[in-house]
Amino acid sequence: MTFTLHPTLAADSTPVVSLELSDVRLMRDARYPWVLVIPRVANVKDAYQLDPVQQQTLTRESAQVSRALMALFAPFKLNVAALGNVVPQLHLHHIARSPGDPAWPRPVWGVGEPVPYTDERLATRVQQLRNVLTVS
Amino acid sequence: MTFTLHPTLAADSTPVVSLELSDVRLMRDARYPWVLVIPRVANVKDAYQLDPVQQQTLTRESAQVSRALMALFAPFKLNVAALGNVVPQLHLHHIARSPGDPAWPRPVWGVGEPVPYTDERLATRVQQLRNVLTVS
Repeated sequence: MTFTLHPTLAADSTPVVSLELSDVRLMRDARYPWVLVIPRVANVKDAYQLDPVQQQTLTRESAQVSRALMALFAPFKLNVAALGNVVPQLHLHHIARSPGDPAWPRPVWGVGEPVPYTDERLATRVQQLRNVLTVS
Repeated sequence: MTFTLHPTLAADSTPVVSLELSDVRLMRDARYPWVLVIPRVANVKDAYQLDPVQQQTLTRESAQVSRALMALFAPFKLNVAALGNVVPQLHLHHIARSPGDPAWPRPVWGVGEPVPYTDERLATRVQQLRNVLTVS
């Protein structure tokens, strides 16, 4: 079976770059720098279901995205999470968190409503991430 | 600098087993099968800060704990997350989630209060996990 991005993930995020295993997408919520890493593997809910090589690749790609968020936004802490209770297609959230952000110190899920980017801010943020992720 | 378990993690959880890189501990909250995986590496907040070999080992150990939770509790979904806004010592939550649990389908953090295990239930659960994790 071929991989198809879950329609909820497609609607909530914008493509940044395709890495070896995973698509990197920016969540459409200007409150936080928030990036999804989604392995292009069909029928996988949890990371342990990937084969060992895919697991190692996902680990490298998650670290690459983590370093990009640290370099661009210098947050106090990253939140890296695979939850998927509502959308059970494996996707790893990477969220740059700092004191004073709208959910701090709680997790971001379920806190308030997403704030849309302007078209210009969205394009800028995607380009920033693309620049860092395509050289690292 | 040597690794010392953060006092909050020590207070909130009970030791299960020490793997090659990480300590596995059971959260003292009977509402969910909820296990922490904590690399014994000092001064690390986020997984990308581990060296590449440690990252791969952590990935293996996280998969091992994930398979153990699936085998023992057959949840609908795992939640695997490194948050650490309040306790910024790297620790990976592994939580077995199913429809009908007290937070479903939301994340577990901030929902209600932990429900303590009885001593007997705690000992049983630790032993179950230890049995699966020491043969896998």
